[in-house]
Amino acid sequence: MKRRGLLIVLSGFSGSGKGTVVKSLLQKYDNYALSISATTRQPRPGEVDGREYFFKTREEFEQMIVEDKLLEHAQYVDNYYGTPRDYVEHKLEDGFDVILEIEIQGALKIREKFPDTVLMFLMPPTADELKKRLEGRGTEDEATIKKRLLRAVEESQGVEEYDYIVINDVLDDCVEQIHEIISNEHCKASNNLEKINQFRDELTNMWKGDIQ
Amino acid sequence: MKRRGLLIVLSGFSGSGKGTVVKSLLQKYDNYALSISATTRQPRPGEVDGREYFFKTREEFEQMIVEDKLLEHAQYVDNYYGTPRDYVEHKLEDGFDVILEIEIQGALKIREKFPDTVLMFLMPPTADELKKRLEGRGTEDEATIKKRLLRAVEESQGVEEYDYIVINDVLDDCVEQIHEIISNEHCKASNNLEKINQFRDELTNMWKGDIQ
Repeated sequence: MKRRGLLIVLSGFSGSGKGTVVKSLLQKYDNYALSISATTRQPRPGEVDGREYFFKTREEFEQMIVEDKLLEHAQYVDNYYGTPRDYVEHKLEDGFDVILEIEIQGALKIREKFPDTVLMFLMPPTADELKKRLEGRGTEDEATIKKRLLRAVEESQGVEEYDYIVINDVLDDCVEQIHEIISNEHCKASNNLEKINQFRDELTNMWKGDIQ
Repeated sequence: MKRRGLLIVLSGFSGSGKGTVVKSLLQKYDNYALSISATTRQPRPGEVDGREYFFKTREEFEQMIVEDKLLEHAQYVDNYYGTPRDYVEHKLEDGFDVILEIEIQGALKIREKFPDTVLMFLMPPTADELKKRLEGRGTEDEATIKKRLLRAVEESQGVEEYDYIVINDVLDDCVEQIHEIISNEHCKASNNLEKINQFRDELTNMWKGDIQ
């Protein structure tokens, strides 16, 4: 009986280092697969279809919505973004723990459909630290920084519903902690109901049968 | 702000090695405290009041029930067993993760009162392995073994409601895994609501105020 993978959402403030953490997880361990989003926005220089995103036309994307081929989708600034269902389901079947790097609102929608999804939110150690990261190299004007701060507040709406808060202070420690949390999630009773029932059936059969 | 401890229940089949695991956890790490049960049964030779159990008269125990001084209690073979509330609450306040070594029915009652309690169930790697342990040195008669098998089936009733299933194959690995799970439980969003709100307040104040 092959162990099914877990669906993992990793969210976090812009500037929390999500991308670096995910890259490091994928490099260090072979049990992870990263879900690739579909989008209708134009590829930026250097972006490759099927690597950064699956680039779709508006018609193709709406077709996917209609055919229920997306686990979640949302619209930002006139572009669609979404999580293709097929890739995720195949990888889970194959035993991979599939990581989605999406924001909170999409994550909460996914958990409605898949209650076992593990939701993790990455935070910098302090609000001051986040502010420093948002300020960049000190070349941004006040309006830009204020906009980013407001966005950070918005980005954390609903985080109370998440399963885990992970502090990204030292990168390697953070990656290890996320890996440990996911490993331990495989011990969740809800992920082991078959095993429990089988064990109990075996005990019951021993009790019914002759003791050897 | 001192971190409050977590309430941890460790249950498992007789013969799953619970006692050894708990002893090892307490020896290796200093963040744990073991809750000591109260009972009305007579002390056995070598047992010390306040170490193995708090030994109480029937009247004293019933007084504790009436005064709501027990987190849970049950009666077996004419004796009361229960978890004194004071010791647990003080240790949690002091930041210790408090381990209760109790069976499933008591554990589920405790979680009704304290929803954040972490419930862990210890299992041997296979049902055959459990049977071997129950058979002891092969000197038990069939009736005794059958009785133990039946008890094992009963001991697992309700385990579906637990949080984690931990396999006790190699002792040290099992102890490490339990320690990791408990460490990660401290990252649960529900255990960090104050931190989240504080972080958001700080961001909001930065946004309101002048950017330095």
